[in-house]
Amino acid sequence: MSRKVTAKIAKSSMAQAVRAAPGALHVPAQVDWQLGGLAEQTKAIEPGVVPGFPPGPAPQQHGPDSACAESRRAPRGGAEVRGRTARWLPPLLSGALHPPALMGPPRRLLLVSNSTLRGGGYLGHCQQQVRSFFGQKVKRVLFIPYALHDRDAYAKTAREKFESLGYGLDSIHESSDPVEAVRKSEAIFIGGGNTFRLLKALYDNSLLQEIRKRVLEDGIPYLGSSAGTNVATISINTTNDMPIVYPPSLQALGLVPFNINPHYLDPDVNSTHMGETRAERILQYHEEPNTPPVLGLREGAMLLVEGDKATLQGVTGARLFLRGEKPTEHEPGTDFSFLLTDSNSQKP
Amino acid sequence: MSRKVTAKIAKSSMAQAVRAAPGALHVPAQVDWQLGGLAEQTKAIEPGVVPGFPPGPAPQQHGPDSACAESRRAPRGGAEVRGRTARWLPPLLSGALHPPALMGPPRRLLLVSNSTLRGGGYLGHCQQQVRSFFGQKVKRVLFIPYALHDRDAYAKTAREKFESLGYGLDSIHESSDPVEAVRKSEAIFIGGGNTFRLLKALYDNSLLQEIRKRVLEDGIPYLGSSAGTNVATISINTTNDMPIVYPPSLQALGLVPFNINPHYLDPDVNSTHMGETRAERILQYHEEPNTPPVLGLREGAMLLVEGDKATLQGVTGARLFLRGEKPTEHEPGTDFSFLLTDSNSQKP
Repeated sequence: MSRKVTAKIAKSSMAQAVRAAPGALHVPAQVDWQLGGLAEQTKAIEPGVVPGFPPGPAPQQHGPDSACAESRRAPRGGAEVRGRTARWLPPLLSGALHPPALMGPPRRLLLVSNSTLRGGGYLGHCQQQVRSFFGQKVKRVLFIPYALHDRDAYAKTAREKFESLGYGLDSIHESSDPVEAVRKSEAIFIGGGNTFRLLKALYDNSLLQEIRKRVLEDGIPYLGSSAGTNVATISINTTNDMPIVYPPSLQALGLVPFNINPHYLDPDVNSTHMGETRAERILQYHEEPNTPPVLGLREGAMLLVEGDKATLQGVTGARLFLRGEKPTEHEPGTDFSFLLTDSNSQKP
Repeated sequence: MSRKVTAKIAKSSMAQAVRAAPGALHVPAQVDWQLGGLAEQTKAIEPGVVPGFPPGPAPQQHGPDSACAESRRAPRGGAEVRGRTARWLPPLLSGALHPPALMGPPRRLLLVSNSTLRGGGYLGHCQQQVRSFFGQKVKRVLFIPYALHDRDAYAKTAREKFESLGYGLDSIHESSDPVEAVRKSEAIFIGGGNTFRLLKALYDNSLLQEIRKRVLEDGIPYLGSSAGTNVATISINTTNDMPIVYPPSLQALGLVPFNINPHYLDPDVNSTHMGETRAERILQYHEEPNTPPVLGLREGAMLLVEGDKATLQGVTGARLFLRGEKPTEHEPGTDFSFLLTDSNSQKP
């Protein structure tokens, strides 16, 4: 994200920022995919006039602070990008220009490729990293089990594991007010399953904006596994899952400005199956315009993000796909911090 | 589809049908998933009143015959079903209750799992069936190459193959008026690639309704391969592809009242990969309410539909998934006609 962009685009603060420094919203074209064409939207900004927010009272149907729930606003945001590759656009406009490294505590993310490695128990292969990530300070973790159908059973599995690691676990589906549960949480864990089902439930429960706020503004730690890693990125355009439901958009939390392909799988040279390989699918994604980097995280790999620093952990490595370039292989320990910056199309 | 449902739901003809026989629109609840809740929508129908079509002139924004292109109507239709599993709803309302077997020439479909079998050339494994399907009467085939990025190259490959089989081939992307190209076509072939990209392009070019009309009303033969087979069914909910773009809906052509999973792949007992198997993904789909049967077509298999008769062809067989039931295995030659009827939840 451009260092020049320091304005936080909430309804009021964007108006203030534009009034105070209309020139501050210049966004280089090459990073505009991160901002979902916001540069284009702001080109014609007049001081004191914010796109989408007329000078007078905003009409209910367009104002982001209207009585409409996020889940009802989201389809309109989604509708605007129909006919285009999903990019970082509203409905999460209020956080879209939030440069987490420039204000408040740093973001803290642990994005795991897979929940279980063959032969190991649930989260067994990453439990040391999880314990180190949450540390002593976190006492209870808020679990989001929306990716699986049987939420009770899923919460039971997660609770047993987290209690064995010394943490209490509250499952959001047991709360009467999911948004409030996120507001009060001290750490978030979104588990794997079907990514479409998960993202749709996040929209249905109006959670995306609140989770973004807690992680990017308040700095609470976010643990994602598989589908929970997918939704932490810009979009779920690079999920492996079957589209069993139709979310109002493919845009996700955008906690990092690129995409991840979890469970990344190398081509099987002995296979006679003619379906596309994983690499071919990601290359198809990059045939679309303005598509961000995709980090293929093999099972056993995970990405640790601490503020502006991103490090590949685990034992299996990752494959990085940049649009128009040959994919590159990366060993555990690789510093992927460049993926968090404006110039993330530059290899290290 | 219910035998009682004989009304064709085009704007004018539905009005006529309701006026003529208001009771004819009773739809049994158990087949309402085929109709996308149309039974519910039509419960309160008064003679002469069509849901969504006021007695006076229909408003532009709702009338299916308005000046709005299908691609612009589609998002609104899609928006209505957000928050629900994709079912057979508008935007294709005008064809939704069309019982193809009850009027006009019978539908003719050849739905192939895959374009190429390992070791064979493009469409090599099904060329005899293709020739037999199109026969002597068809002279030129309209090819729809939208599923791949390089349409010119794709059309070249397809043209060479079809010319070798004795057919001329016109690629729709070379036409200045794609809808008119469909109108004039004597046979349609939609090739494989990325199913999301294909479906989005069909919506963008306002082609779904016209293709439905040509196939279901005019009886021209439809050949689909891989993604082209996916879009022939109710929806693309059971595609294997990556959602590299966001179509305005997952609803597809609905030429058959069930879903297909092409490239169906049996679990690899030697794999250590922990991503869901294909069967697990389809079972996840069936965890959602009101989901139709899914026919898992292995590579090398294809489904021939001639009017009310559906037969499994090829050499590799298929696996059938019915919601709430154990999947069943089916040999080449299986009569799948029951999947075309109301009682398609009944096994043969």
